[in-house]
Parts: sequence; C-alpha cells; structure tokens
Amino acid sequence: MLPKVWPTILTLGLILLAISAAEALMALMSLALGDGLAVDFGITAALTGAFASACILTTKGRAFDLRFRDAALLTVAVWVIVPAFAAIPFFNDPIHMSPIDAYFEAVSGLTTTGATVMSDLDARPPSILLWRSTMQWIGGVGIIGLAIVVLPFLRIGGMALFQLESSEKHETNLPRLRSVALTVVAIYLAMTVLCFFAYWALGMSPFDALNHAFTTVCTGGYSTHDASFAQFDSLAIEWTAIVFMVGGSLPFLFYVRIFGRGSTRNRVEPQVISFLVLLVVLVAVLATWLVIVEPMQVFTAITKAAFTVVAITTSTGYASADYVAWGTFAAMLVFLMSFLGGCTGSTTGGIKMFRLHVLFAVVVQHIQRVFHPHIVSPLRYGERVVSDEQATSVGTFIFLFLLSFALLAIALSAVGLDPGTALSASIAAVGNIGPGAVPEIGPIETYALLPDAAKVLLSAAMILGRLEIMSVLILFLPSFYR
Amino acid sequence: MLPKVWPTILTLGLILLAISAAEALMALMSLALGDGLAVDFGITAALTGAFASACILTTKGRAFDLRFRDAALLTVAVWVIVPAFAAIPFFNDPIHMSPIDAYFEAVSGLTTTGATVMSDLDARPPSILLWRSTMQWIGGVGIIGLAIVVLPFLRIGGMALFQLESSEKHETNLPRLRSVALTVVAIYLAMTVLCFFAYWALGMSPFDALNHAFTTVCTGGYSTHDASFAQFDSLAIEWTAIVFMVGGSLPFLFYVRIFGRGSTRNRVEPQVISFLVLLVVLVAVLATWLVIVEPMQVFTAITKAAFTVVAITTSTGYASADYVAWGTFAAMLVFLMSFLGGCTGSTTGGIKMFRLHVLFAVVVQHIQRVFHPHIVSPLRYGERVVSDEQATSVGTFIFLFLLSFALLAIALSAVGLDPGTALSASIAAVGNIGPGAVPEIGPIETYALLPDAAKVLLSAAMILGRLEIMSVLILFLPSFYR
Repeated sequence: MLPKVWPTILTLGLILLAISAAEALMALMSLALGDGLAVDFGITAALTGAFASACILTTKGRAFDLRFRDAALLTVAVWVIVPAFAAIPFFNDPIHMSPIDAYFEAVSGLTTTGATVMSDLDARPPSILLWRSTMQWIGGVGIIGLAIVVLPFLRIGGMALFQLESSEKHETNLPRLRSVALTVVAIYLAMTVLCFFAYWALGMSPFDALNHAFTTVCTGGYSTHDASFAQFDSLAIEWTAIVFMVGGSLPFLFYVRIFGRGSTRNRVEPQVISFLVLLVVLVAVLATWLVIVEPMQVFTAITKAAFTVVAITTSTGYASADYVAWGTFAAMLVFLMSFLGGCTGSTTGGIKMFRLHVLFAVVVQHIQRVFHPHIVSPLRYGERVVSDEQATSVGTFIFLFLLSFALLAIALSAVGLDPGTALSASIAAVGNIGPGAVPEIGPIETYALLPDAAKVLLSAAMILGRLEIMSVLILFLPSFYR
Repeated sequence: MLPKVWPTILTLGLILLAISAAEALMALMSLALGDGLAVDFGITAALTGAFASACILTTKGRAFDLRFRDAALLTVAVWVIVPAFAAIPFFNDPIHMSPIDAYFEAVSGLTTTGATVMSDLDARPPSILLWRSTMQWIGGVGIIGLAIVVLPFLRIGGMALFQLESSEKHETNLPRLRSVALTVVAIYLAMTVLCFFAYWALGMSPFDALNHAFTTVCTGGYSTHDASFAQFDSLAIEWTAIVFMVGGSLPFLFYVRIFGRGSTRNRVEPQVISFLVLLVVLVAVLATWLVIVEPMQVFTAITKAAFTVVAITTSTGYASADYVAWGTFAAMLVFLMSFLGGCTGSTTGGIKMFRLHVLFAVVVQHIQRVFHPHIVSPLRYGERVVSDEQATSVGTFIFLFLLSFALLAIALSAVGLDPGTALSASIAAVGNIGPGAVPEIGPIETYALLPDAAKVLLSAAMILGRLEIMSVLILFLPSFYR
C-alpha cells in the first residue's frame, strides 16, 4: 500500500503560498527600508507563488482524508522542499551564497535551529536579516503544529500521550483541532507582540526589537548582530529574553489549558515543573562557577549563567557572552545541556523534558523495585498512567536521538571536522540548538568555514532532529511501502 | 535493617590472603629476576597477610549466609579496599609513586582498565611490571565471579537473565556454583597458558609472553613496553592478541556450556553472534578508511584496524599503532567504540553486548508496532523470553552508564581537563578501557600529568564502571539502610 502523494502536494502548496506571501511582505519591507532588494523579493514571491498555485490546482476537488503513511510522507517532504524556496533570497546579490550555504541557512531558519553561515550581520541589508527572523517565526508555527497534530498521530516518542483525542481510532476531530490551533496561534502572536514591546521599551531599535521578538518566541536564535545579545549590553534586555525564551519552551497546550475553557485538572504539567527546577539547578551551578573562577559579580554571574543555560536548554542559541571563553567547565556544561531541550509541545529541540521526566520515573521505579521486588504500581505522568508502550516509545526516541548524534559525529569527522567540533556540531544540529560549544563554531563564530559536505550533513540532521527522527526513519523502512 | 558487616570482613580477608600470596610470589620472582625488590615485596606480603588473617579470625565460627544487602556492601568494600593493599609495591623505591598515583595504578590494574600513570616501562624493574600484569590477571578472576555470581544476585542491568538458578528465591545452589566456578577458572587458566605459548612461539621473550598473556586474557591491557604491541612489530603476534582478546570477551558461561555437560540447547548465545558481526563491520569500516586515507596496504590496514577495534571494544586498550595519529575519523570511531564493550559475563567493560542486543530488539519491536499496532509478541533473547522488568533493567543500566559518563566528564572539566580530554578520559574510565582517544591520554601517553583531583575521580569511576554502577549506587540510597 503506497502512500497517497496528493495530500503532500496540496499541503506543500498551501504552505508555499504562505511562504510566498511572506516573501511579498519582505518586498514591501525592502521598499520601506530602502535597501534595494524589493525586486528580488518580488520575483522570489512570484516564483514561489506560481509553484504553490500549481501544487494546489493539480489536487483540486479531492477530500482531505489523511492516513498514517500519507502524514509521514507529507511531513518529511514539506520540511525538505520548503527550505529550497525560502533559500532563494540568499542566492541574489549582495548576499550571493552558494546553493548549499543558502539551503543550510534556510533549513537552520525554518527548523528554528539558528546555526548560520552568515557573518558581518551588522553590514547586511535589513530586509535579508528580517527574512531570516521571519523564517524562524514561520518555522515556529509549523513546529508547534507538528508537535500537537502530526507527531502524536504518528505515535512518536511517547507523543501519543499528548493526543488531543481519546479516540482509539486516531481519527482527527477537526473542529476541536481547529479551535486549539487558533488558540495556539493567538498565544504565539500575543507573546511575540509582548516581547516586541518589551525589547523596544528597554532600548532596542524597533527593527532589532521586531527581529529578536520573532526569533525569541520561536526559540530560534538568529540575531541582527554578530555579537548577538552582547550587542545591547543590558541586563534588563537579557532578563526579558530569558523570560520569553522560557515562555516559548513551555508546552503551548499548557497555555491553551490555562487560558482556555478546559477542566481545572492537569493544569500544570509535570514536565513544566521538572523543566523549571532543572533550569534553577543548572543556573546555580554555572553562576557559582562564574563567581569563583572568572570571577564575576554575583548578579552579573547569575544573569550570564541564566542567559546561557536558558539559551542552550531551550535550543534558542543566543549568546550574551562568549561562553566558550569561560573555560573547560562551561564549555562541557553547554555541550551536555544541548541534549536536554525544553518542554515537549513547544518549539524547542533536543530530547525534551516530557521524555526525560518519563525516563527518570522509569529509572526511579526500577531502583525502588530492587528493594521491594513485589510492589507493582503503574508508571504515572502527573495523574495519567503511562503505558508500557508509551514508555518504550520514549526509550526508543532517546536511543534513536543518541544514535543519530553518534553517527552524524562519525560522518562529520570523516569529512574532516576535528573530533571536538564534530561532536559539538552534531548535537547543535540534531538538537536544533545552533551554536556549538567549541571555539570553531562557538557563539561568536559561524558555520561558514566548514566543508560543503559537512553543511549538507548538518542540513539533513537539522531536519531529522526537528521531525523527531522516527518520522524520517519510517520512510526508509520496506514495511512502509507494503 | 542494616547490612551485616562480617561477611564483608571475611570475604575481604580471604581475597587479601590471595593478594598476599601473589605478593609473596612476586618476592620470589624478584629474587629470580635479580631486580632487588624481593625484600619490599616480602614486607608487603607480610603486611597484607597480617591484615587478611586478622579479618578472617574476627569472623571465625560464623555460617556464611549472604543476603542482598550484605552482597552489595561486600562487593563495593572489596573493590575499594583491596587496591590499597595492591598499591603498596608502587610506594617504594625505585618507583616511588604518590599515594594517589599508586592507588590509581592498582585500581586500574584490578579493574582490568589498563590506564597507567607509569611511563618508561622499558626501564622499570621487571618484578614491578609483572606485579601490574598479575593484578590484572587476578582482577579478571574477580570480575568473572562478579558477573556470574554477584550481579545476577543483585538483579543489575538485566543480569538476572543469566542467573544460574531458576529458583525464584534467589538462593544460591552452592555445589552447582562451585562446580561452575572451578570450570570457569580452569578455562581462564587454560586460555592464559595457550596465549603464553603462542606469544613465546612467535618471538616474544618468555617474560613478555607471560605478562602479555596475563593482560590479554583478562582484557586488561597493561604492557611491559611503552610502545605496547607496536614494540614487537609482528602481524602474527597482533593476530594472536586479537584472537585471545576476543576469546577473553566472550561470556565464560558460554565456554562452560560448550565444554561442560550442559544441554545442547542455547549453545550459542545471541550476544556472541551480535558481537562478532559488529566487530567485522567496524573492522571493515576502519580498514577501508586506512586504505583510502593513510594509505596503507590492504593486509596491514586490516590487521591494524582489527587490532584497534578489538582492543577498544573488548576494553583491553592495547595499541599496535597510535590510532590518534590516524586523524579525526579514527579518533572519533575509537571514542564512540569505547561505549560498546564485549559480551556480558566476561571481563570486558562498557555497556556490553547483551544489553545492546536487548536494546536493539526493543527498538526494532517498537518500530514494527508503528506499522502493526495490534501484533503483540514477547521480546526474546535467543529462545528465552525477556520480561518487561528485565528490559527495564537493561534500559536503567544504560541510562545510569551514560549519566555517570556525563557527570564524570563535567567533574573532570571542573578540575581543569579540556573538554575533549574530559570526555575521552570519562568513557575510558567508566568503560574500563584504559587509553583515551585524544593525544593527551592516547595510546602512547599516560595519565601521569593529569591533576590529582582527576586521578581520584577516575579511580572512583573505574570502580563504579566495574561494579556496573547500580551496586555502588544502592549503597547511597536511604532505602538501603531501612
């Protein structure tokens, strides 16, 4: 039973139509900003729009009934093809990137990774900078949709626990889904607007405030300055970023439950508590180190530590200081924190909190059984029982995540990266973090100097990580086509 | 309910009596070799023997009924205290190590890790070199005993599947246990003798052959030369080492079943097949790399690749070439291979094959369920059904192993190791490998220059890894003392 191709073509068309609209908006922005790229963006929008229309027209008149196989194919195809159209503006003068660099930049943008091959940001046309930020913001919407609709549908990595429906038939309840989607988008928009005004009020230019609001809320990490947040040299702005990065890392359904008309039960997800506790512990450890070793003043140390811990665990990847220069301990902590991620159901990358929470619960339960072998109690996540299959699903995801990380690191070392850079680049891509923990690809450097083969591998890895591995993997299994 | 202390004291006494006898034997060897350390070894043997006798006498007249808590305490106490007595010869002239260095060397020896702080091996007194090899050989016996008797008893990391008894009461069937233990020791001895004659016949001096036979069969890795196996420059000797390293990495109960009077069922364990297949794949990959990139001749490349892959995955840690100098890809492969280990029930370290086999089976089964959600078949290891609890036990072990690795790497970076060295040293210790994958602690370097704090951490980690983490961890849980 082959997957049906036309739901993929239709969805691709609809998404590219949105991308085309965004590109048209960039043409207008370019006119307003006077950086001379209006015609380029106009042509790009026309090209993308024409392709999008063709996709939509060929599938006219068909009912949209999505099955398991179609959903997997659709997801991968969309995330591989859309970046190609988003990359077009980077080909033209004055950016003039190679096709591989442009695709890398677009993938990094749409997956909200934030790894960049572009240096001298401060000297680039503003409309190009805004396009990078806009890609991340649009990508963020796509990722939340992925986390709420597609991944639970594909039963990936324990996500079935987050399924909106209790139906065993995995049918989608469209009206309910539409209402949730609208609420989520409204919250995402509201957070962006709030973040914009906060940045602006604290001293950013409106342009910087808009760009950084776009890339903060989606935990993306692209900046308009090479120095990232160090440019602003303001503890108030850093704390604002910390608050909104954390805000963007909480599960969006959690907001829906708080603001929506849902029941009062399960208002606070256990993963949210775990996440906040973990952040406090990591900030305390790093801040202590900075006070003792650097040495920094206590409040500065707490701010710098909080900014770095939050930027990395939320997979945003901003920098308010060159943490690689803080020495071996900070670099190691950044490297290992890159595996964690924020909450499941947000735009963050990495393993993510729900899974770490379940893993931890399984381990604690198993250790208790060493002492009390005959006590059998079901595994719980908050008030919900986690089935054996869901726990296995979590374990499988973590295994595949670590395996992808290891195989990518080997592949990167085969194309010439030294072991430290290969390990760091691997987790920065698979975990959708962005900057690495080694000087070569650290927060004040870019990926520009890596060999093309590495950029291709990393582009693939960013998509693989974003789609939580399984959705890509199953396309390569013979069972998928039987 | 506190654990009883006296079974620990008695066992410690008996083991130290064996160590004392070995030290007395070293005194005789020193006389024969004429290196002037006979008196030193004699005094060491007397000290150790006196302490051992005191331990045994204080527990006289008690029946030996071991319970769960006693077994855990005993295991940890023995592996922490015995190295202190084995370290005494390194204090004296002409070695004159610091207490921390001497303890590190003894722990590395008895855990068959093979990390060393001793350079200029070629210029050291032969009796000291022989003592290092002997420690590893004795440690090997202890580890097989641990794997066959203690770990299944403590139900650690899926080891319950290897329990000799089918009794649910976890009582030990002493006559059966004694017979198995004698067979295992006989096989271990026979392998050592065979290995000795093979090395001697192929050109090693009898002294080198004895030392290397001791440290090959136990997958230890201490050598009598700084250049390790590169000293002999003989492909025949390298292949002999490969065969015996693999021989020492197969489960010893597998030999008992083949040579013993057991049933014909389950003669070949699935993990043995997985292990051999994995070795062939890794050797093919590394040899291809060496032929293309170095470039080496095909047979030399296969030999060097096989030696390196086998030395690392079996956690022996010999070197027949400086693999760190082969470039980024080889170094990365060595680093990641360090996690694997040989078969469960042997002297190898790392995660080990049985667990990787079960993990892989769980993941494959889960992915199949994505396509066929309603097919339920029990998880199998060969012909035996793996229970959910055993699978969880395997998962828990792997989680604790990776967590130990990560926390140790952070701790090592906090005491000043650069991130690459910290990561490499961490897995080399927790996995009981020995040499690292970075130049600083690579196969032609030693751990001598690391800070004392790092040596203390690594000594603890070697014991932690050797005891499969859980046996140490449970001593730190409040439940253990209730």
